[in-house]
Amino acid sequence: MREEGKLAIGVDLGGTYIKGGVVNLQGQILRRESAQTLSREGPKRILAQIANLVEGLRRGDEVAGLGVGCPGLVEPTSGIVRDPPNLFGWREVNVKEELERKLALRVEVANDVNAAALGELHFGAGRGVKDFICITLGTGVGGGLVLAGKLFTGSKGGAGEIGHLPVNIFGPHCRCGNYGCLERYVGAEYIIERARNGLKANPDSLLSPLDKEGRLTPKLIAEVALRGDKLAQEIFRETGEIIGAALSGVVNLLNPELVIVGGGVAQAGKLILEPIRRTLAERAMNKEIQKVEVIPALLGEDAGLIGAAALILKP
Amino acid sequence: MREEGKLAIGVDLGGTYIKGGVVNLQGQILRRESAQTLSREGPKRILAQIANLVEGLRRGDEVAGLGVGCPGLVEPTSGIVRDPPNLFGWREVNVKEELERKLALRVEVANDVNAAALGELHFGAGRGVKDFICITLGTGVGGGLVLAGKLFTGSKGGAGEIGHLPVNIFGPHCRCGNYGCLERYVGAEYIIERARNGLKANPDSLLSPLDKEGRLTPKLIAEVALRGDKLAQEIFRETGEIIGAALSGVVNLLNPELVIVGGGVAQAGKLILEPIRRTLAERAMNKEIQKVEVIPALLGEDAGLIGAAALILKP
Repeated sequence: MREEGKLAIGVDLGGTYIKGGVVNLQGQILRRESAQTLSREGPKRILAQIANLVEGLRRGDEVAGLGVGCPGLVEPTSGIVRDPPNLFGWREVNVKEELERKLALRVEVANDVNAAALGELHFGAGRGVKDFICITLGTGVGGGLVLAGKLFTGSKGGAGEIGHLPVNIFGPHCRCGNYGCLERYVGAEYIIERARNGLKANPDSLLSPLDKEGRLTPKLIAEVALRGDKLAQEIFRETGEIIGAALSGVVNLLNPELVIVGGGVAQAGKLILEPIRRTLAERAMNKEIQKVEVIPALLGEDAGLIGAAALILKP
Repeated sequence: MREEGKLAIGVDLGGTYIKGGVVNLQGQILRRESAQTLSREGPKRILAQIANLVEGLRRGDEVAGLGVGCPGLVEPTSGIVRDPPNLFGWREVNVKEELERKLALRVEVANDVNAAALGELHFGAGRGVKDFICITLGTGVGGGLVLAGKLFTGSKGGAGEIGHLPVNIFGPHCRCGNYGCLERYVGAEYIIERARNGLKANPDSLLSPLDKEGRLTPKLIAEVALRGDKLAQEIFRETGEIIGAALSGVVNLLNPELVIVGGGVAQAGKLILEPIRRTLAERAMNKEIQKVEVIPALLGEDAGLIGAAALILKP
C-alpha cells in the first residue's frame, strides 16, 4: 500500500446511531454506513454491530486500521471504555482488544469528543494550531484539548470535560454529582428552561406558541432569534456570556491560541459566538491571553468519525 | 565538564528578594546568595542586580547556564517577560537576551510559579509523575501545569493561572478584571477577611486579640486552629472546600494523577489539605478522575530557585 493511498475506517459510536466511514489521508469520507445502536442490549451486541459495519465498509480494500470514538471514559493506551452514558450494561469493556480479535485489524479507541477534537486538528478548524480547546454544545457540553500539538487525554483518558467545570461552586446540583457545572447552565435542557422562565415576563414572544406545543429546542429558539425575537436573542446572549465566562477560566489555565465551538447549539452561529467572544475578551486575564480566537468547528457531525480515523491515519 | 558534574545557576526574582543559587544535577543548592529587589527602580537596575548575584555565585566555576524564574507573563522561547506584578516600570523586557549579553552564559526564563512546578517535577513531589498540577497558596494563588511529562506553558507562556479560574462567575470582582476568581476567595487577604467576619459571631475566638492587634495572618490563624480554636478551624475548612471545589473543575478538565499544594498557606498542612481532598473526592466527575492524589510540595521556598536551574539542567 502506498502511503499516499492510505485509508482507515472511522467509527463514531453514539447512543442512537453507529456511524462508520472509510477515510483517506485528506480526511475525506469515501463511503459511509450507519446503523441504529442497540443501546439496551449490552456491549457484545454493539461490538458485533461495529464489526459488521466495518466488514461492510471494508469491501476487500486494504485499510490501515480502525479508529473508534466512544462515549464515556476511554483509556487511550489500553482501549478500555468505562461507563459510557446512554449505553446500558457496560461498565468496563476493552473495545480495542475485542475488536482487534474480531476483525484482525489494528484498532485505536478514543473518547468521542476527543476524537472530534483530533478531527478538527488534522482536517478541520484546528489545522496547524498547537494549543486549542474544543467545546461541543448539545444535549450535554463536552470538550477536547489539543496541547503542544497533540490530543491531551490526561492520566486515565478523562481529560477535556469542560462541561463539568463549575462556573459556580455554590450553584445547583449537576447530574455528575458536582455543583454549578457549565453543563448545568447551558446544556440544551437548561437553555429551554431559560426560555420557559423568560416567557413568564414576555408572553408575546414568538417562543410562546412553540412552548405551548412542547416544541422548544435550542435550534428553534435560534430560528426565532434570527427572526428578531427579543427574548430568544436574550437567551442566546445569556447562554453565550456564561460559556464565555467559563472559557475565561479555561484560557487563564491553558492559554490556548484557539477555541473551537461545535455541537448542535453552535449552529446558532453569531448569536452564540459573539457573546462568547465579547465575554472572553472582557474576562480573560491579560492582553496576551485575550488574543485567543473563537471560531466554529469545521467538520460538523462528521468530526467524530473523521477524528476516529485520524487515530490510525495520523498516529 | 563531565555531565555528572553539571552545575547551573537558578535565580528566583521576587518583588521583595532576588534569590540565587548554584544547583547540581541532584537538585541540591551548593551555595546561595540573595539581595533585596530594587523593585521601584526599573528593569535595568534589576537585571544588573541579577548579573551581580550570578557573578558572585559563579566564582570561576564552570556552569552550564542560568535559569531565571520571573513573576508575570513569560514567553518561554523568546524569554520576554511582560507586566510582572510588584516590579515597576517593566511592561516588556527580553530578560533572556539582556542577561545573555551581560553574562556570556546561556539563559532560560520561566514564570516563577511555572519554575516551581518544574522544580517539583525533577527534584520534588512530582518526580516520575506525567500529569500534575501545582497550586501555590499565598498572597495570591498561582499554579503550574506539568502535562505529558513536560512543563506546559501555553501559546504565550500564560498557562497555569489557577488563581484566576472563576469559582463563581456571578461572584465579586477580582483585581484581574474577572469575577469570582479562586484567588478572590482564598488569597491571603480574603482568608483574613473571612476570619474578621467570623469574629462578629464568635467574639471569644482566640483570633480576637490577634485581630485587635492587627496581626491576623493565615499563618497565625493556622497556629490558633492547631490549638483547637473552632473559628480558626472553620476558616481553614471553608478555604479548603473552596479550593477543592475549584480543583474539581481542573481535574475534570485535565485528569492529572496528582495535585501538589505549595505556598505559605499550605503550611497549615492537614488543616487545609483534608478539606481539599474530601471536597475533591466528593465533586470530581468519576472514580478514575477521583483517584487524583493531593500532596504538599516538597521543595518549599526553594522550589522556584531549583526549578529555574532545572530549565538548564533538565532541558
